[in-house]
Amino acid sequence: MKTTILIHCPDQSGIICAVTGFIHAHGGNIIYLDQHVDKQSNVFFMRLESDFSESTSLVEFEKAFNEGLAKTYTMEWSLYSDDVKPKMAIFVSKYNHCLYDLLSRYKSGELNVEIPFIISNHTALREIAEQFEIDFHHIAVTAQTKGQAEQEQLRLLKEHRVDFVVLARYMQIVTNTLIEEYPNKIINIHHSFLPAFAGAKPYHAAFDRGVKIIGATSHYVTEDLDAGPIIEQDVTTVSHTHSIQDFIAKGRDLEKIVLSRAIKLHLKRKTMVYNNKTVIFA
Amino acid sequence: MKTTILIHCPDQSGIICAVTGFIHAHGGNIIYLDQHVDKQSNVFFMRLESDFSESTSLVEFEKAFNEGLAKTYTMEWSLYSDDVKPKMAIFVSKYNHCLYDLLSRYKSGELNVEIPFIISNHTALREIAEQFEIDFHHIAVTAQTKGQAEQEQLRLLKEHRVDFVVLARYMQIVTNTLIEEYPNKIINIHHSFLPAFAGAKPYHAAFDRGVKIIGATSHYVTEDLDAGPIIEQDVTTVSHTHSIQDFIAKGRDLEKIVLSRAIKLHLKRKTMVYNNKTVIFA
Amino acid sequence: MKTTILIHCPDQSGIICAVTGFIHAHGGNIIYLDQHVDKQSNVFFMRLESDFSESTSLVEFEKAFNEGLAKTYTMEWSLYSDDVKPKMAIFVSKYNHCLYDLLSRYKSGELNVEIPFIISNHTALREIAEQFEIDFHHIAVTAQTKGQAEQEQLRLLKEHRVDFVVLARYMQIVTNTLIEEYPNKIINIHHSFLPAFAGAKPYHAAFDRGVKIIGATSHYVTEDLDAGPIIEQDVTTVSHTHSIQDFIAKGRDLEKIVLSRAIKLHLKRKTMVYNNKTVIFA
Amino acid sequence: MKTTILIHCPDQSGIICAVTGFIHAHGGNIIYLDQHVDKQSNVFFMRLESDFSESTSLVEFEKAFNEGLAKTYTMEWSLYSDDVKPKMAIFVSKYNHCLYDLLSRYKSGELNVEIPFIISNHTALREIAEQFEIDFHHIAVTAQTKGQAEQEQLRLLKEHRVDFVVLARYMQIVTNTLIEEYPNKIINIHHSFLPAFAGAKPYHAAFDRGVKIIGATSHYVTEDLDAGPIIEQDVTTVSHTHSIQDFIAKGRDLEKIVLSRAIKLHLKRKTMVYNNKTVIFA
Repeated sequence: MKTTILIHCPDQSGIICAVTGFIHAHGGNIIYLDQHVDKQSNVFFMRLESDFSESTSLVEFEKAFNEGLAKTYTMEWSLYSDDVKPKMAIFVSKYNHCLYDLLSRYKSGELNVEIPFIISNHTALREIAEQFEIDFHHIAVTAQTKGQAEQEQLRLLKEHRVDFVVLARYMQIVTNTLIEEYPNKIINIHHSFLPAFAGAKPYHAAFDRGVKIIGATSHYVTEDLDAGPIIEQDVTTVSHTHSIQDFIAKGRDLEKIVLSRAIKLHLKRKTMVYNNKTVIFA
Repeated sequence: MKTTILIHCPDQSGIICAVTGFIHAHGGNIIYLDQHVDKQSNVFFMRLESDFSESTSLVEFEKAFNEGLAKTYTMEWSLYSDDVKPKMAIFVSKYNHCLYDLLSRYKSGELNVEIPFIISNHTALREIAEQFEIDFHHIAVTAQTKGQAEQEQLRLLKEHRVDFVVLARYMQIVTNTLIEEYPNKIINIHHSFLPAFAGAKPYHAAFDRGVKIIGATSHYVTEDLDAGPIIEQDVTTVSHTHSIQDFIAKGRDLEKIVLSRAIKLHLKRKTMVYNNKTVIFA
Repeated sequence: MKTTILIHCPDQSGIICAVTGFIHAHGGNIIYLDQHVDKQSNVFFMRLESDFSESTSLVEFEKAFNEGLAKTYTMEWSLYSDDVKPKMAIFVSKYNHCLYDLLSRYKSGELNVEIPFIISNHTALREIAEQFEIDFHHIAVTAQTKGQAEQEQLRLLKEHRVDFVVLARYMQIVTNTLIEEYPNKIINIHHSFLPAFAGAKPYHAAFDRGVKIIGATSHYVTEDLDAGPIIEQDVTTVSHTHSIQDFIAKGRDLEKIVLSRAIKLHLKRKTMVYNNKTVIFA
Repeated sequence: MKTTILIHCPDQSGIICAVTGFIHAHGGNIIYLDQHVDKQSNVFFMRLESDFSESTSLVEFEKAFNEGLAKTYTMEWSLYSDDVKPKMAIFVSKYNHCLYDLLSRYKSGELNVEIPFIISNHTALREIAEQFEIDFHHIAVTAQTKGQAEQEQLRLLKEHRVDFVVLARYMQIVTNTLIEEYPNKIINIHHSFLPAFAGAKPYHAAFDRGVKIIGATSHYVTEDLDAGPIIEQDVTTVSHTHSIQDFIAKGRDLEKIVLSRAIKLHLKRKTMVYNNKTVIFA
């Protein structure tokens, strides 16, 4: 049984030795270990891929770990079995490039997830959902209905036991109603190299400023708009020969690549969040 | 005689034909032509490299151009002879990497300039100036003496007929006293991908924000701090494994490369400024 | 009527003036002009976007150009009207990522083409063709049937008046039977930064060599395998932590982006081929 | 006392636990641990930064490690104290950009090395050595004197107890005479993205092939020309507008950046070599 363990705790001497010894003693073979210490806050982070013999009970392992190491070192930790396929919901509005890209990857088996449904505040992309045979829920959002819409979204997420949410160019602000239920589990793609050009119309702002490089940023959603922990960024060059339409077209490729990379990192449990920043393991 | 001509004017039909015909008629052979139209402001930009026969008088060509085409099309234009080596002054404070890089390129013949002197508000880099045999002027700058210091700087620039100024990590704000005398002729290097992290300590700000990409930006200096027309930008990746010191070290390489590219573009007359943006010809 | 004109001819003085004057005299307004001189072979290249008044007859313009300028300057040239949508055929084998990407772009209106059909030597991707409602022709290829298969491919291309062919990871060598009918009109994507790792299994070869960067190259197909004129290349970093499977996964993203960029350049008539190299206009 | 330990051995279960426990038991605190398993050859690699208390005898630690863990797990390993500054010799010919860059970094304190001398087969760069106050040895190399010249080089390297050699655009092939004495300790910079364009005049070859990207590669020198383990690579874009001279100018910046990065990785003991490939720790 392949598993991934994520740990963070106050940094102390001897943690690596203690954890690797513990796993070893419980029939686990460590395949990969990566660790990091945030020196400003003195926090230790570790990610371990381990292979346990079939006879090991992961439930008992978790219990023993909780009662032993986790207490000793004041650890926050979680164990994921590679056998369990996470459930990912997709929120979209009208732009289709990220949705096409995600669904193509999904159909190809490139993303190890289930996609129980797509939610949209518009009906424009219903056809794509049907083309890829994914359930599509149209939940309109207006200033008046926003609260109600989020309750309906939340109901669907709970009902399907969704693990994380991807905002694939969902042009609505998500409020604490959802964020508190999915902390560091809502992944957004913003079409600029944040923190430059946060907010609306970043390509127009980039064009007006005359930058020579544009970017895209995928981040976990927090209460502060476009200010959550950054998972992945990439950029491409532009010049005076490019119109705003060219910026947008170039940006589409960036957005879909950056978003899919962020999702893969999340799926492989390679992201840890601390102090509004991410540790992204190799 | 090789020359470069830069033109901008309201866009109209027939300009390219008129200009190329005019140059042709005056004994010039066009080696390279690049043009651009800013569709928002309807401004036409053109850059021409031409080879004139030795018998051509550039003075007479200028006169004829002024009285003819320039009037007809309401052109702003300038003609540069490749025989004239521009004079570049360098302003520095205490960081030496950009200065070392520029002087190494200069000594290797990579930059087709004269460097009459280096000005600094500190004495830390005097030794490097001496090592490369360039005059070094220490002009201290305090809140009280700033105005006087800029007058002294200006006096030196005028005396040596300096064509343009490079701020090679000069940690002082330059005021209108200098900017008005050298419009679009003062090149700065800022250690972030502007407009992100304008102002002081951009690497610290980038580190705190947890970005995955850092950058450097070279721009013409205007009254608004770090907000002038961007000439060149580049970026490099960073991760949670990098400390602020690592950001600074990686950034040094970016800064020196980006600054030198901007200077070369300026020297080849490949930059034109309009509406606080640049046209950068290929 | 918007048109694009491509010209190449021996370099001589006065061409730009002559061509722009000619277009002007025939009711054309030049929107964009780009030119290049290959100094080794002394060949002049030019690309012009022009807007002609509705009353202009492009047929007569072509006739006049042929009898006038084209003769005087020994030009090879062609004129394309933006009103005519080119027809693009896609050849695939079993890999689906480039096909998904192209069809998604096509459906979104990002590619200004018609796609009359997809040809494959396998049936694996028939379902995707159906999903996007494009005709799919299965033409099996074996050592014995190769000649016959190419005749069948050619028949379909001719019947549908296909303008150019995209090999979207088509794992077969295309012979002169097709190449001679579509010179510089068959676009391939090769999964390495050519000329490194030409031929089969480039990701395996890159892995074995221990490179730190992998790439993808889109080029026009010529008789020499993977040696045709390069249209577009891009790269991404890899490390010892990446397996061959990781190389392949990272490469998929490169391949689809690079191929789509090359197709867009081809569609916008921004590519010219000479001496097995390309001029790619901005 | 800060130390870096590098280990490689056949992969087995429990190594990380054993090593971290051992260091812990000998008064060491692990600051950073990175590991990798080459799955093809089943070899385990580990790099540990540890801080030992002043009372620890590193000599005794080494002895205990050799007799214990190293035997049990058949390890090849080495321990480096951060207090010891490595000695780096530089070999050059006539190109000065890498030399200027390295000496500027050295003078700025960016490279934690001693540079006892520069060796060249020409006298062209003597002046730069003098400018930076480094000893310069001119050792001419001809077909006849090559063996004798290498003996003289070797004598100087031995006499000064040089730890590693940097070929900073040294245009001579280095033979086994030197390589065997400095295995994986001679760092070269080659001006192409290897394996493309190995051998002489890579920029000319890249120009002729019409590539859209050029690169530079730093690698350890082995008997096979330009085929040693790659430490670092980077690339930059080129186009039809660039002449061979432009390729060379753009390449200079790549070369100096890539070479300096490789040297820093080597200095920080972040490189391990196996099967002609490198493990480069983060």
